[in-house]
Amino acid sequence: MTLLIRGGTVVNADRAFRADVLCEGGKIVAVGENLEAPAHAEVIDAGGQYVMPGGIDPHTHMQLPFMGTVTADDFYTGTAAGLAGGTTTIIDFVIPDPKQRLMDAFQTWRGWAEKAAADYTFHVAVTWWDDTVHEDMGTLVKRHGVNSFKHFMAYKNAIMADDETLVKSFRRALELGAIPTVHAENGELVYQLQRELLAKGIRGPEAHPLSRPPEVEAEAANRAIAIAGVLGTPVYIVHVSCAESLEAITRARARGQRVYGEALAGHLVIDDSVYRDADPEVARAYVMSPPFRSSHHQTALWQGLQGGNLHTTATDHCTFCAGQKGMGADDFTRIPNGCGGVEERMAVVWDAGVNTGRLTPSEFVRVTSTNAAQIFNIYPRKGSVSVGADADVVVWDPQGTRTLSAATQHSKGDFNVFEGRTVRGIPTHTVAAGKLVYANGDLRAERGAGRYVERPAFTGTI
Amino acid sequence: MTLLIRGGTVVNADRAFRADVLCEGGKIVAVGENLEAPAHAEVIDAGGQYVMPGGIDPHTHMQLPFMGTVTADDFYTGTAAGLAGGTTTIIDFVIPDPKQRLMDAFQTWRGWAEKAAADYTFHVAVTWWDDTVHEDMGTLVKRHGVNSFKHFMAYKNAIMADDETLVKSFRRALELGAIPTVHAENGELVYQLQRELLAKGIRGPEAHPLSRPPEVEAEAANRAIAIAGVLGTPVYIVHVSCAESLEAITRARARGQRVYGEALAGHLVIDDSVYRDADPEVARAYVMSPPFRSSHHQTALWQGLQGGNLHTTATDHCTFCAGQKGMGADDFTRIPNGCGGVEERMAVVWDAGVNTGRLTPSEFVRVTSTNAAQIFNIYPRKGSVSVGADADVVVWDPQGTRTLSAATQHSKGDFNVFEGRTVRGIPTHTVAAGKLVYANGDLRAERGAGRYVERPAFTGTI
Amino acid sequence: MTLLIRGGTVVNADRAFRADVLCEGGKIVAVGENLEAPAHAEVIDAGGQYVMPGGIDPHTHMQLPFMGTVTADDFYTGTAAGLAGGTTTIIDFVIPDPKQRLMDAFQTWRGWAEKAAADYTFHVAVTWWDDTVHEDMGTLVKRHGVNSFKHFMAYKNAIMADDETLVKSFRRALELGAIPTVHAENGELVYQLQRELLAKGIRGPEAHPLSRPPEVEAEAANRAIAIAGVLGTPVYIVHVSCAESLEAITRARARGQRVYGEALAGHLVIDDSVYRDADPEVARAYVMSPPFRSSHHQTALWQGLQGGNLHTTATDHCTFCAGQKGMGADDFTRIPNGCGGVEERMAVVWDAGVNTGRLTPSEFVRVTSTNAAQIFNIYPRKGSVSVGADADVVVWDPQGTRTLSAATQHSKGDFNVFEGRTVRGIPTHTVAAGKLVYANGDLRAERGAGRYVERPAFTGTI
Amino acid sequence: MTLLIRGGTVVNADRAFRADVLCEGGKIVAVGENLEAPAHAEVIDAGGQYVMPGGIDPHTHMQLPFMGTVTADDFYTGTAAGLAGGTTTIIDFVIPDPKQRLMDAFQTWRGWAEKAAADYTFHVAVTWWDDTVHEDMGTLVKRHGVNSFKHFMAYKNAIMADDETLVKSFRRALELGAIPTVHAENGELVYQLQRELLAKGIRGPEAHPLSRPPEVEAEAANRAIAIAGVLGTPVYIVHVSCAESLEAITRARARGQRVYGEALAGHLVIDDSVYRDADPEVARAYVMSPPFRSSHHQTALWQGLQGGNLHTTATDHCTFCAGQKGMGADDFTRIPNGCGGVEERMAVVWDAGVNTGRLTPSEFVRVTSTNAAQIFNIYPRKGSVSVGADADVVVWDPQGTRTLSAATQHSKGDFNVFEGRTVRGIPTHTVAAGKLVYANGDLRAERGAGRYVERPAFTGTI
Repeated sequence: MTLLIRGGTVVNADRAFRADVLCEGGKIVAVGENLEAPAHAEVIDAGGQYVMPGGIDPHTHMQLPFMGTVTADDFYTGTAAGLAGGTTTIIDFVIPDPKQRLMDAFQTWRGWAEKAAADYTFHVAVTWWDDTVHEDMGTLVKRHGVNSFKHFMAYKNAIMADDETLVKSFRRALELGAIPTVHAENGELVYQLQRELLAKGIRGPEAHPLSRPPEVEAEAANRAIAIAGVLGTPVYIVHVSCAESLEAITRARARGQRVYGEALAGHLVIDDSVYRDADPEVARAYVMSPPFRSSHHQTALWQGLQGGNLHTTATDHCTFCAGQKGMGADDFTRIPNGCGGVEERMAVVWDAGVNTGRLTPSEFVRVTSTNAAQIFNIYPRKGSVSVGADADVVVWDPQGTRTLSAATQHSKGDFNVFEGRTVRGIPTHTVAAGKLVYANGDLRAERGAGRYVERPAFTGTI
Repeated sequence: MTLLIRGGTVVNADRAFRADVLCEGGKIVAVGENLEAPAHAEVIDAGGQYVMPGGIDPHTHMQLPFMGTVTADDFYTGTAAGLAGGTTTIIDFVIPDPKQRLMDAFQTWRGWAEKAAADYTFHVAVTWWDDTVHEDMGTLVKRHGVNSFKHFMAYKNAIMADDETLVKSFRRALELGAIPTVHAENGELVYQLQRELLAKGIRGPEAHPLSRPPEVEAEAANRAIAIAGVLGTPVYIVHVSCAESLEAITRARARGQRVYGEALAGHLVIDDSVYRDADPEVARAYVMSPPFRSSHHQTALWQGLQGGNLHTTATDHCTFCAGQKGMGADDFTRIPNGCGGVEERMAVVWDAGVNTGRLTPSEFVRVTSTNAAQIFNIYPRKGSVSVGADADVVVWDPQGTRTLSAATQHSKGDFNVFEGRTVRGIPTHTVAAGKLVYANGDLRAERGAGRYVERPAFTGTI
Repeated sequence: MTLLIRGGTVVNADRAFRADVLCEGGKIVAVGENLEAPAHAEVIDAGGQYVMPGGIDPHTHMQLPFMGTVTADDFYTGTAAGLAGGTTTIIDFVIPDPKQRLMDAFQTWRGWAEKAAADYTFHVAVTWWDDTVHEDMGTLVKRHGVNSFKHFMAYKNAIMADDETLVKSFRRALELGAIPTVHAENGELVYQLQRELLAKGIRGPEAHPLSRPPEVEAEAANRAIAIAGVLGTPVYIVHVSCAESLEAITRARARGQRVYGEALAGHLVIDDSVYRDADPEVARAYVMSPPFRSSHHQTALWQGLQGGNLHTTATDHCTFCAGQKGMGADDFTRIPNGCGGVEERMAVVWDAGVNTGRLTPSEFVRVTSTNAAQIFNIYPRKGSVSVGADADVVVWDPQGTRTLSAATQHSKGDFNVFEGRTVRGIPTHTVAAGKLVYANGDLRAERGAGRYVERPAFTGTI
Repeated sequence: MTLLIRGGTVVNADRAFRADVLCEGGKIVAVGENLEAPAHAEVIDAGGQYVMPGGIDPHTHMQLPFMGTVTADDFYTGTAAGLAGGTTTIIDFVIPDPKQRLMDAFQTWRGWAEKAAADYTFHVAVTWWDDTVHEDMGTLVKRHGVNSFKHFMAYKNAIMADDETLVKSFRRALELGAIPTVHAENGELVYQLQRELLAKGIRGPEAHPLSRPPEVEAEAANRAIAIAGVLGTPVYIVHVSCAESLEAITRARARGQRVYGEALAGHLVIDDSVYRDADPEVARAYVMSPPFRSSHHQTALWQGLQGGNLHTTATDHCTFCAGQKGMGADDFTRIPNGCGGVEERMAVVWDAGVNTGRLTPSEFVRVTSTNAAQIFNIYPRKGSVSVGADADVVVWDPQGTRTLSAATQHSKGDFNVFEGRTVRGIPTHTVAAGKLVYANGDLRAERGAGRYVERPAFTGTI
């Protein structure tokens, strides 16, 4: 397929400029003014629009078995929803059970993901430790294109990594040229606070944020950063949701430490009043960890993105339906944790970020695509509109508007955390691997078209 | 015994003023100008001198069984050395073995301490957790005058408290009106760094500070403070040795959290060059945890005392002789950790603090006596030269000098970490419980004269 | 007059204890349990109540000629209102016009103040510089008991001190043993923002806070602190109203610099929504500088008081009536700046500070009385319930309630910034200089009974 | 001239990759693997070397009349020295006298610069204010390609800008799409400290740093940032030399403010011991403002570059010879301020930055070239090895070594602040505007070959 995107303004992380973009064989083959359209080429008119690298969502959970159920979106429906929103690559997670070989889990997830409509790759979680974990980390890096390992500091009695596991895994990652990532919440404090709330009879979703206050997240972030700092490895903190956690990152960066932070689209614009919704079904729908926070934290997260102390935006897309959420009707600790967003992220970040003057279009590209590509070492194949890159491109209409809603979303969840929010700035066309997969509301996602993306180990030149 | 201290300037934490001090029956019975000397009274001429509350060393380990040996100073020799230096009260530590009942350990230490020459009281360590620990904490607070519990975050596979123990013990302390204290070092990191250094063949004392870098301490301090903050309990960080750890305290205090910090006299004036001493016996003599730090940390600690972010000065007096230290000649992790100082603290802090203009005399009193008395709730019985207080008084000659040395010290250790340091500002007389126990070099410490000091639980009025 | 305050709990800055207090000849002559009442003594029953040092308001403007008018309260009515609220000493300001000799202004204010009903003393403002200012500062310190000099960094084209004046005056103060104080707002930025707002046609009181954002205050605080730090003088920042300004203080204190901060009762509990009141007369009544701030600043100020980074509470009592405020009806820059509060401060700080658990009673005493006495060197004559101190005492009923209102206040203003606020914790009796001047609503303030309080220069012992 | 740079690793700010680079007509016309050499092309063998964008030194003073003399390097010798070190563009300063029209000064400097051997452009200083300044700023931006204006907060009674000038000029720059830059030192404090030191008889070069302590710089940086923040304009702080000043930047960036910071090569590696050199001629040679600092500041500056809180490296190249420096032999305030470095910067930053692991090669490119190009809006014409860019390229041998010395430098100064330092990592070839101007020690700089580079105003897309 040959595609010419004509007449738009190309926006990359480093600059914006008027250019046409020619895609052929799944790659971008030319970027320049007044390109000639090959005879057979399909032409997309990008006049008055921005032409940007397709979004990368570095944090999704498709088809995840979790808390006794499985997320509503599988790799096909989830990636398709992403394409409708301008996201052309996801980084999902392989999460082995404690005692399960990492390689076994990896193969399981690889199988599940074959149906994906967009490109995908995996962080692999280290949820326990023994020599096989050490060995499998090596195999994954050297033979399977994995360069990041995830650690949950929360979820005591389940997948929580203790300090010993953190230290050993971080050190192994450093040795291999991989980057450790962490879910930063002190699992012990969460557990004790949960027990105490339940003991006091506070059992509804309003208890969820009370069991996970900002200090609980900030402590864990600070601890992970300290361990990384002592060992000399970079570290990436997922879903930074509060000012205190961001401050831990900011302090470390000010000391020159290589720490990266990720903000979720939801945490950037939704506050914790949702947990006090009169309808417990609605309140439960917002249960995720870390929880939504009071409004000054949103201000802080935007400042983090502006000042370069946060680097990526993600979603932690992990959808459960009302029936599933209802498993925790009488006990908030049993509500499956997770919310959607893979489809809405780009538009939400544009609307709340660019339209308000917080971010320039180039900065938008950085935090929705380029930084993730660089941090996880798939740049410039991803994250760049340039010759030789994968033809993953989104054509963006800064004046187009859409009202976000569960009723119109492509995701299989039955809820939309952004319900009713009208955004200005939306994708008109999404091109993935050189194919036009979304055009003005028409989603042409193809089951299985997505490819597994290998991510090489780091070498230290860049 | 009746004593009149005449002609000096009384220095309390809040002010300094010309007054005589009359002691009778172990108490201060009058403070005022031109007091009449009772017929039978011994008169101490304090002309040109300061009359201050006797020092309180809130962190000592006398007669401690540790790392396979026992410290050189017992409760008699250690408290006697303190009296010679102007310190009239120590707070020592009861350290139960894991699985040992707290009450059993407490009774053991009470027995050991009966020979003390000066007043003493105990922090009790919580080194493990089960229901008996919960119960014994209650007994100790309600019936035995204990209002502080110590937690070691270091010493993995020995007395290290994990997060679960910290959370449960802190909460129990709060419930009882007691204050948790912590030795803040991440024991897991220390352990892994030790293993790694040994594996690399770095086995001498120079490896000791490398295995305990400032980040290891700061992480733990931050974690303890976070746990305390979430639970709503005050917390006291012992032997803060580095800027990063102090910053964790400073941040918390700036948020209004009740966090207290202790600096050791040694950490205030000695830097880490000692570990590179050509003589390994000397280098080993300085092995303690946290270790001595590079010089900018000393600057930071003084700033902490000046700005009110650190509150007390202590010593962690824990003396081992060269023979004992030699147990780790081939493996730095086996060097018994500990250094002396109970005799030198007051003079060292005065010389480096007051003579340099960092502290006023009243501030000196605060950080050597009054703050400890207030934080551990024995004020104004201790920490104050006022009517009704215990007659624990030091007469201080700001012009007197002394050269500190193992050759002249009263402590039973065979080393002096301040060897050769000449200080200006020394005690001429120490009065303890109304008796003159030290006068111009003549130490009259009496075995068994010291009393166990009960410290009531906190009620929240002050 | 002899007074026995019987049965209460004495609260000082360092502790609380059950004791009776005997006052005679204007002094406290005994503090102890079960004191015998002299035959002629009037007895105040303080059962169930706290007996605390009378409040010191270190920032008032009685009878101030300002912006073309004069405040409603003179020294008599203002100090009488203070007594009704438990405040027994004020520190007011002598503010020379540029080019006016400091001594001339000082004499003028001394004359105005003779009618005061409570003790008073003066900060003297340095609003310009030449050799006579240098000379008069010396005269004031050495012969007139002035130990603090005020500098306005705002009010361009009027009393603003430029950097040259700040540097020269701070240095002179250091030389004399006096402490510089500053009103920290960048006058140039305020001026330019005012011009711009007026040019845009934004002329009402809602423009007032827009012309003085937090950064304007923080910049000046930081600058004053930097100048003081370079010169080596302590410095006191008046009316710290915002988090950013407090952070400048906190940073400096963390470096060991001697910086003190003052919070106003109003800034602690009132937010900036008042400037959007539908009634412009109400909005104008709240116009003062710095302005009231959004609510997270109140949180920060309380944290500052709790953590020891702020030290005193004051009012900047400076009352103008609606007619006077109306001078700025068409131009917010002409609204006389100022609000009342001398009568309400103690109760407001208790209610919002002690009842909420932010402050203990002893901490309340510190921030309403003792710290001011120590910083401005009139301790322990003021700020302490102890033998030898001035008999300035307030008997405080922690359960008593009052609803604050202009309708019931003693101050001569026609507005009350705390209107309608019901506080729990009120004075039942105020004793000033040994006389009962307020008892259960009966105010017996005597015109001219107040004395000028000399404050000696600092010597550096305390 | 056609040049093919063959066999090297191209390093850009975003990535490094194997590629040849073809230059023709002064531009880069191809970047790719295995490029065919045109028949007429000169081929440079870059095997084993890095091919990087030519350095941009955003802070030089060639041919500057200052303190009664003129710098030793003019635009020809200075730019030639730069080329020898791999720097292909300088940003110099037009500095009008107070009361001089900006346009007049600009034309003067344009004339002086015609002899330059490398490309150049100008910041224009705003040293005073009236309506003509306002007007000339507009003319410079709209017609002469100036997009940055410099403000000196130091140099009282000479070119110091007061707050009024800062506010008005910053606002005007914002309106025009230009960026204000500042030399941050509180000129009043410097002046008073100078007077005081001279009065005490401390007249030699050792007094220079005493008159400009870090707080003096940090205060001014904080003030400039506050003014920029209130007005909503970005701001660039030149020659950040100390931790405290960097902290002001870091704080602002953490709040999301667009603040940029520049470090000088000298400040990164030289400490203040130079002012205590036994030879006063040597000590004087190091006199520049801000001065060199104690060593922990160097650590901090590197951390700033690593963490993204500092953005560029420069030199403030401003050479005076011993005879000129000697004008201040008896009065340090008369020593002409300035040091060289334009020739050494790239190698010094590589050696101390990349060889130590602080910076990757891509990060080196950012801080020596790309960031300056982006901040001052000449990217990607400058700062990038990409098709269409100016053919300004340096071929870098990471293994080559050189010992820096006045004896071998091309600069006309008679001193080298890096004297005797051996660096590893040096340019082998410099290509400027497509011409090979330096090859293995052979400097072929051509007088007048440099071009004036217009820098367009900012529009906000990037």
